[in-house]
Amino acid sequence: MGSLDIAGFEAAARARLADDVWGYIQGGSGSESALRANREALERLRVRPRFLVDVSACDPSTSVLGLPLATPLGIAPMAYHRLAHPEGEVATAEAAGASGTLLTVSMFASRTLEDIAAAAAGSPLWLQLYWLRERAAVVELADRAAAAGFSALVLTVDAPKVARRPRDSRSGFTVPEGIGAVNLPSSLTASAHRHSEGASSIERHSREQFDPGITWADLAWLRERTSLPLLIKGILTAEDAELAVAHGASGVVVSNHGGRQLDCAVASADALPEIVDAVGGRCPVVVDGGIRHGSDVLKVLALGADLALIGRPVLWGLAQGGAAGVAELLELLRAELTEAMVLSGCPLTSDINRSFITAG
Amino acid sequence: MGSLDIAGFEAAARARLADDVWGYIQGGSGSESALRANREALERLRVRPRFLVDVSACDPSTSVLGLPLATPLGIAPMAYHRLAHPEGEVATAEAAGASGTLLTVSMFASRTLEDIAAAAAGSPLWLQLYWLRERAAVVELADRAAAAGFSALVLTVDAPKVARRPRDSRSGFTVPEGIGAVNLPSSLTASAHRHSEGASSIERHSREQFDPGITWADLAWLRERTSLPLLIKGILTAEDAELAVAHGASGVVVSNHGGRQLDCAVASADALPEIVDAVGGRCPVVVDGGIRHGSDVLKVLALGADLALIGRPVLWGLAQGGAAGVAELLELLRAELTEAMVLSGCPLTSDINRSFITAG
Amino acid sequence: MGSLDIAGFEAAARARLADDVWGYIQGGSGSESALRANREALERLRVRPRFLVDVSACDPSTSVLGLPLATPLGIAPMAYHRLAHPEGEVATAEAAGASGTLLTVSMFASRTLEDIAAAAAGSPLWLQLYWLRERAAVVELADRAAAAGFSALVLTVDAPKVARRPRDSRSGFTVPEGIGAVNLPSSLTASAHRHSEGASSIERHSREQFDPGITWADLAWLRERTSLPLLIKGILTAEDAELAVAHGASGVVVSNHGGRQLDCAVASADALPEIVDAVGGRCPVVVDGGIRHGSDVLKVLALGADLALIGRPVLWGLAQGGAAGVAELLELLRAELTEAMVLSGCPLTSDINRSFITAG
Amino acid sequence: MGSLDIAGFEAAARARLADDVWGYIQGGSGSESALRANREALERLRVRPRFLVDVSACDPSTSVLGLPLATPLGIAPMAYHRLAHPEGEVATAEAAGASGTLLTVSMFASRTLEDIAAAAAGSPLWLQLYWLRERAAVVELADRAAAAGFSALVLTVDAPKVARRPRDSRSGFTVPEGIGAVNLPSSLTASAHRHSEGASSIERHSREQFDPGITWADLAWLRERTSLPLLIKGILTAEDAELAVAHGASGVVVSNHGGRQLDCAVASADALPEIVDAVGGRCPVVVDGGIRHGSDVLKVLALGADLALIGRPVLWGLAQGGAAGVAELLELLRAELTEAMVLSGCPLTSDINRSFITAG
Ligand SMILES: Cc1cc2nc3c(=O)[nH]c(=O)nc-3n(C[C@H](O)[C@H](O)[C@H](O)COP(=O)(O)O)c2cc1C
Ligand SMILES: Cc1cc2nc3c(=O)[nH]c(=O)nc-3n(C[C@H](O)[C@H](O)[C@H](O)COP(=O)(O)O)c2cc1C
Ligand SMILES: Cc1cc2nc3c(=O)[nH]c(=O)nc-3n(C[C@H](O)[C@H](O)[C@H](O)COP(=O)(O)O)c2cc1C
Ligand SMILES: Cc1cc2nc3c(=O)[nH]c(=O)nc-3n(C[C@H](O)[C@H](O)[C@H](O)COP(=O)(O)O)c2cc1C
Repeated sequence: MGSLDIAGFEAAARARLADDVWGYIQGGSGSESALRANREALERLRVRPRFLVDVSACDPSTSVLGLPLATPLGIAPMAYHRLAHPEGEVATAEAAGASGTLLTVSMFASRTLEDIAAAAAGSPLWLQLYWLRERAAVVELADRAAAAGFSALVLTVDAPKVARRPRDSRSGFTVPEGIGAVNLPSSLTASAHRHSEGASSIERHSREQFDPGITWADLAWLRERTSLPLLIKGILTAEDAELAVAHGASGVVVSNHGGRQLDCAVASADALPEIVDAVGGRCPVVVDGGIRHGSDVLKVLALGADLALIGRPVLWGLAQGGAAGVAELLELLRAELTEAMVLSGCPLTSDINRSFITAG
Repeated sequence: MGSLDIAGFEAAARARLADDVWGYIQGGSGSESALRANREALERLRVRPRFLVDVSACDPSTSVLGLPLATPLGIAPMAYHRLAHPEGEVATAEAAGASGTLLTVSMFASRTLEDIAAAAAGSPLWLQLYWLRERAAVVELADRAAAAGFSALVLTVDAPKVARRPRDSRSGFTVPEGIGAVNLPSSLTASAHRHSEGASSIERHSREQFDPGITWADLAWLRERTSLPLLIKGILTAEDAELAVAHGASGVVVSNHGGRQLDCAVASADALPEIVDAVGGRCPVVVDGGIRHGSDVLKVLALGADLALIGRPVLWGLAQGGAAGVAELLELLRAELTEAMVLSGCPLTSDINRSFITAG
Repeated sequence: MGSLDIAGFEAAARARLADDVWGYIQGGSGSESALRANREALERLRVRPRFLVDVSACDPSTSVLGLPLATPLGIAPMAYHRLAHPEGEVATAEAAGASGTLLTVSMFASRTLEDIAAAAAGSPLWLQLYWLRERAAVVELADRAAAAGFSALVLTVDAPKVARRPRDSRSGFTVPEGIGAVNLPSSLTASAHRHSEGASSIERHSREQFDPGITWADLAWLRERTSLPLLIKGILTAEDAELAVAHGASGVVVSNHGGRQLDCAVASADALPEIVDAVGGRCPVVVDGGIRHGSDVLKVLALGADLALIGRPVLWGLAQGGAAGVAELLELLRAELTEAMVLSGCPLTSDINRSFITAG
Repeated sequence: MGSLDIAGFEAAARARLADDVWGYIQGGSGSESALRANREALERLRVRPRFLVDVSACDPSTSVLGLPLATPLGIAPMAYHRLAHPEGEVATAEAAGASGTLLTVSMFASRTLEDIAAAAAGSPLWLQLYWLRERAAVVELADRAAAAGFSALVLTVDAPKVARRPRDSRSGFTVPEGIGAVNLPSSLTASAHRHSEGASSIERHSREQFDPGITWADLAWLRERTSLPLLIKGILTAEDAELAVAHGASGVVVSNHGGRQLDCAVASADALPEIVDAVGGRCPVVVDGGIRHGSDVLKVLALGADLALIGRPVLWGLAQGGAAGVAELLELLRAELTEAMVLSGCPLTSDINRSFITAG
C-alpha cells in the first residue's frame, strides 16, 4: 500500500491540475456554505465503539439492490473524468472493477459507456441521468446502459439547472476541446465548450439542455421506458423521500450535490436521519457529500445509510496516478473503514446501527 | 450580466471611497456585535429544498401593501447616497425604477423627493421618517412624499438618538459640505456639517433634532396627518410588533438598523420568527440586516417575512458604477434569488414557508 | 469628553506599565479559562430592545443598600492602585467621588482609608476584606472604615489562598518597594515584597496571612464586631447565595475574581441567574467579571443584578491619566449605559428586567 | 518547586526528542479528531465552586481497590518510556514511588517489571496487558507482576489492532534498536523493530501479535489464571461498562487511548457520565485522555470518576529531567489539584460530586 493519506491525495492532485480545472472540481456554488456544512456535519458526529467483540474477520462487504459490493463505499457520478486524467472514466472503472467497487457513471462521462463497462470487468455500474428537454436522448442512454450491463439508473433531481459557481464564473471555465460528454449527441453538448466572458459554460449549457419542468408524475414515463431500477439522487427531506418511495423509486441518494447546487442547502449528513426514518427500510438509502475517511462511512452507516458515495477524492486519485491512483485511494478508504469496524466492534456492516452514534 | 459577485462589489466600493466615508457606511455601533450577529444568524439557518416540482417558470415577484414588486427584495433607507456617488438617490432610483424594485428613501436623502420620484418612473417608493422635535417638518415631508407619488411612510423608531459609532468618532466623520439632507429645512440640518474633534457630527445632530420623547400614543397624531400607510421600522420583539399592529401600523420592519444602533441588540433574523407569529398575518413583515445573497432572502421568507431590504450593498453598487452599478447589484441578487427558488422547488414566493428552514 | 473607547484605554495603559505589572493586572489564574469565560458569557447574551417609550430623560441612577448611586456601575476592589499611578486610590477616589460612583477599596489598598475617604468627598465607599489569620487586624480595619465614613464591608470568600497565576510566576512578580498595603500592620505585609525565583510573592503572602479555615459559622463573629452591612464577594452558586442570606449577609457579589482564582470556575454572568432566583430579592445582588461596555451593565441588570462592578478598566484609566483618566473611563461607561437605556427603551434602571435578554 | 507549567514541560520535551519519537508520543490516529475531542470536552465543563468551607487541610488522597493513593491521579500505561529517557520506566517509577502515585506499567515497558518494582519502593503498581495470540505469554507476565508486587492488572480492550497513525506512517517510525519490550519473549517483539517504507512498525507488529478474536467470554479464562484484580481499559459506553461488571471486572478505565485508536471515538470525558451511572458504584471508574491540569482532575471526579490517569505529560517530564522531571510534573499536578480543591471548597476528594459541574 502507498503512503498517501487523504490530504496527500488532495495535495498531489492540486499540483497536477490547471487552476480552472481545479476550481471546477473543488468548488461549490455561491459562498460554498453547503460545501463546508457537509464536513462540519460529519465532524460533529462521534462514535460510541464497543469492545471484546470478535473482530478477527471484519468484513466491509455489503449488498445493495441485490448487488454484492466489496464495501459500502461507491463512487459518485462526476462529469468528465478526463479533466483529471487522459484515460478518464476507463481508468476509474479499471480501479473500481479490480476492487469490486460500485461506480456511478455520469451522464456527462467523457468515455463511452461501453468502454467503461469493459474496463469495469463485471463489477457493478450505475448510470446517472439528468432529465434533458430532449427526452429521447435520456431513454436512448438508459437503453445503452442496460445493454452494456449497467445495473441501475440514478436520476439526479437537484439540478433543474446548474448553480452559479463563483470559481467557474471567475475563471470562465469551459470544458476543453477534446474532452466531451461522448455519450450524448453532439448537438446537445456543443454549448458546453463555448467560452464566454465572466460566465461558466457549464451553467449556460445546463440552462439550454436540462428540463426544469419535470415533476414526480413524470417519473412514471421514464420508469416505463427502462427495465433498470431507478434511484433518485439529491433528496434532502423526509417529504421527498416519502414521495420517491411512493413513486416507485428503487432507492434514494441523500445529497446536496457536494455543495455544488443550492448553496444554502442543509448538509447531507444532517438530512440523513429523517430520511432513513421516512423510508423505513422500503428501499436503500445512499448518501454522499464530504465523505473523506473510512470513519465517515461508519458514521453514515450508523445513521442508517446503506451505501456512501465519494466524489472529489476519486478525481484526486485519478489525477495523481490514473487507474493506479484511484485503486490506491479506494484501498486507503477500504482499509480505514475496515479499521474503524475493527476498532468499534462491528464485524459486519449490518452490525453498525444508530446506537454507535452520538453528537459528542 | 456583469461578473462581480457580492464580495466583488464590496471590494470595488472600498477602493473608490474615502476612508471616513467607508467607515460611516460599513460601520456599526459600539463593538459592532449586532453587525456581526446579523450575518451569523443568517448563516446558521439552512434550507430544506424540495425537488421534482415544476420550476420552469420561477417567478420572484410579490406584492406588499397592494404594490406589485418585481422581487421580495427592496432597498433599505440610507442617508446621503451622494456620499457614494455624485448623482446620489437619483441614480439609485433610476436603477430601482428600471427593475421594479421598491426603494425606501431616507429622510436624510441628498436629492429631492421630487427628483427621486421622477427617476423612479412609477416604480414604488417609500419614504422613511425620523420623528423630529420639529413635528411640522415631518408632516410637511409626508405631504410632499404623497404628492410626489410615494406609496408609504416608514417611521424608524430604533433611533431616539443616533448611537455612538467608533469608526465615525475616530474619523471625526462630518457630512461633507455640498452634500446635505436637501428635503429638510436647512435650519434643521446645519449641525450635521459642523466638525468637532473626536466626535461624530451625525450623532450630535441627532441629539439636537430627534424627539426621544414620543410614544406609541403619538402615532395617532402622525397617522391623522397623512393618508399614506405607515410602517414601523426597528421592531425586534413580539411585544412591540403587537403594539404596532394595535396602534394601526400598516406593517413592521424587523431591523436592528444594520447593527448601527443598539450594539447588543438581537440579530434581526433571530427576532423574526416571534414577530411573524405575533403579527399573525395582520400586516406585512419586512426585515433587513445582513442580507447579502439571494439565499438570505429565501431564508427570511421561509421564516415568514414578506419582504427583505438590503442596505450597504446598494451603496457598494452605487459607488462602483452609479445607476448602472446599482442595476447590476440588483440583478445579481434577483438572479441569485430566482436560482435559489429553482433549486429549492419554489416556483412562487408564496410557496416558501417555514418547512423550508432548519437550524442545520 | 475624550475620544478613547475601551480598547483605547487598554492600549494606553499597556504602553505605560512595566511588563510584570501589566501581567499582574491583566492576568488570570491557570490557563486563564475563567478569564475568557467571563467575556464569552456576556457576549453570548443579546438584548431585546423596546421602542416608542419616552426616553427623553433616561436616568441610570439607582440605589443599593439605601445608598443613592449615580449609576449601577461601581468599582471593584483591587489591590495596590499605586501600581498603575503614583497617586493610587486617592486619584481613583477623586474621580469616583466627582461622579458619585461607588468605590470598593481593597484591603490591600496602597493609600490610607482616611486619605481615600477625603478624596471621595462623601461619595459612597465600601471596604473589601480578606479574612486574615490575624483576626484583630480585620476588625481594626473595619472600625477604621466605619470611622472614615465607609458604608459597607465586602468580605471576599473566593480566596482561601491566592491562586497560581502563571504570568506572575514567570515574571516573579513582587510588589515593588515603596508600594504597600498601608492599612495593614507592616508585620502582616512584609512578605509580599520578598522576591523569590519563579514564584509570585503575592501567592506566598496569601498563604501566610489568609485564614483558609473560616466557615459560614464564623461570619457571626465578624458581624458582631462591626455595625456596617456585610456583603459576601465571590459567590457562584445558588446554594452559597442561600447560605449567605441565611447567615445575615447584606448582599452578595457574584464573581469569579475576574478569572484570578479558580481557573475552571463558571463565568459570573452564567452563574448570575440562578443566584438572583435563589436570593429572591432578599438582598442586593452585585456582579463583576468582564464588564467592559455599558451594554454589559444592561445585560447583567436584565439578568437581575442590582449593581455591576468593573475591575481592570479602572486601572487602565488610572494608568493612562490618574484621576482624570479614571473620570474619563467612568464617563465613557456611564454614557454608554445611558445610550443603551435610551436605545432599548428603559428610562430607569428599574425598567430593565429579564424580558430584555435572550441567548441570541 | 520548579517553575515550569504544563506548557513548559511540553516545550522542554519537544526540544529534547527526535522528530519521529515526538510524533509517536504526541500523535493520534487518523485526523486526530479524538485527540482534540478529549481536550474540548474537558474545556467545555465548568466548575461551581463552594466557599466558606474549612479548607485549611485539603487532602487529595484517596483509595482505589483498597490501595491508598496520595492523589486521585495516576500514570497511564505507555509503551517504551526509554524513548523519552535512557532510564525509562525505572526513572518514572522512582518519581511515582517517592510521591505515592499509582503507576500503570505498559506490557511494552522497556525496563523489567522487577526493576520497576524495585524503583517504586512499595508504591502501588498496576500492569497493563494486551491480549496476545500467544496467551501463555500474557499469563506468564501476570504471574511475574503478582510476584513483583503489582496490585492489579489492566486489560486494554480498545486495541484489537493498533490504529493507523499518520505521523508514524509518514516518519516510518520504528522502535530504535536497543529499546524493546523487555518483559516479552523476543520472538514476540522482533517485528516492532523492522523498518518498512511509509508504514509504522508498531502497527504491523500489533497485527501479528494481538488477538482480535477475544470476547467478553474469554475474560473468565484470564481471571482464572491470576489472583490479581482485573480492570478493563478502553470502555466508552454504558453498555460495555455493564458487560464489564457482569463479567467480573474489578474496575473500568474510560478511555479512547488518548486519541490513538478509533479516530472518530467519543471523548472520554463525554462518555464518563453514562458509564458512572451504569456502574452505579459497583467498581471503581478510572478515566484518562487529555488530563493536563489539576482542575481537569477535579472535573472528572465531579463527573463521578474515582481516579484520573495522565499519559503524555509524564513522558514530557521524563524527557525533560528523568526521575526528577517526572517528580516535578507530578508535584505540579498535585499542587494544582490541591489548589482547585481549596478554591472550590472540597477538603476531601470524597466531597467532590456532580453538583460541582456545569456545562457553562
Ligand atoms: C467535478 C464534479 C462533477 C460532478 N458531476 C456530477 C454529475 O455529472 N452528476 C451528478 O449527479 N452529480 C455530479 N457531481 C456531484 C457528485 O455526484 C456528488 O454528489 C458529490 O461530489 C459528493 O460530494 P463530495 O465531492 O464531497 O464527495 C459532481 C461533483 C463534482 C465534484
Ligand atoms: C450608511 C447607512 C445609512 C443609513 N441611514 C438610515 C436612515 O437614514 N434611516 C433608517 O431608517 N435607516 C438607515 N440605515 C439603516 C438601514 O435602513 C438598514 O436598516 C440597514 O442598513 C440594513 O442592514 P444591511 O446594511 O446589513 O443590509 C442606514 C444604514 C446605512 C448603512
Ligand atoms: C489587579 C487586580 C487586583 C485585585 N485585587 C482584589 C482584591 O484585593 N480583593 C478582591 O476582592 N478582589 C480583587 N480583585 C478582583 C476584582 O475585585 C474583581 O472581582 C475583578 O477584577 C472583576 O473582573 P474584571 O477585572 O474583568 O472587571 C482584583 C482584580 C485585579 C485585576
Ligand atoms: C506514547 C504512548 C504510548 C501508549 N502506550 C500504551 C500502552 O502500551 N497500553 C495502553 O493501554 N495504552 C497506551 N497508551 C494510552 C495511554 O494509556 C492513555 O490512554 C492516554 O495516553 C491518555 O491520554 P493523554 O496522553 O491525553 O493523557 C499510550 C499512550 C501514549 C501517548
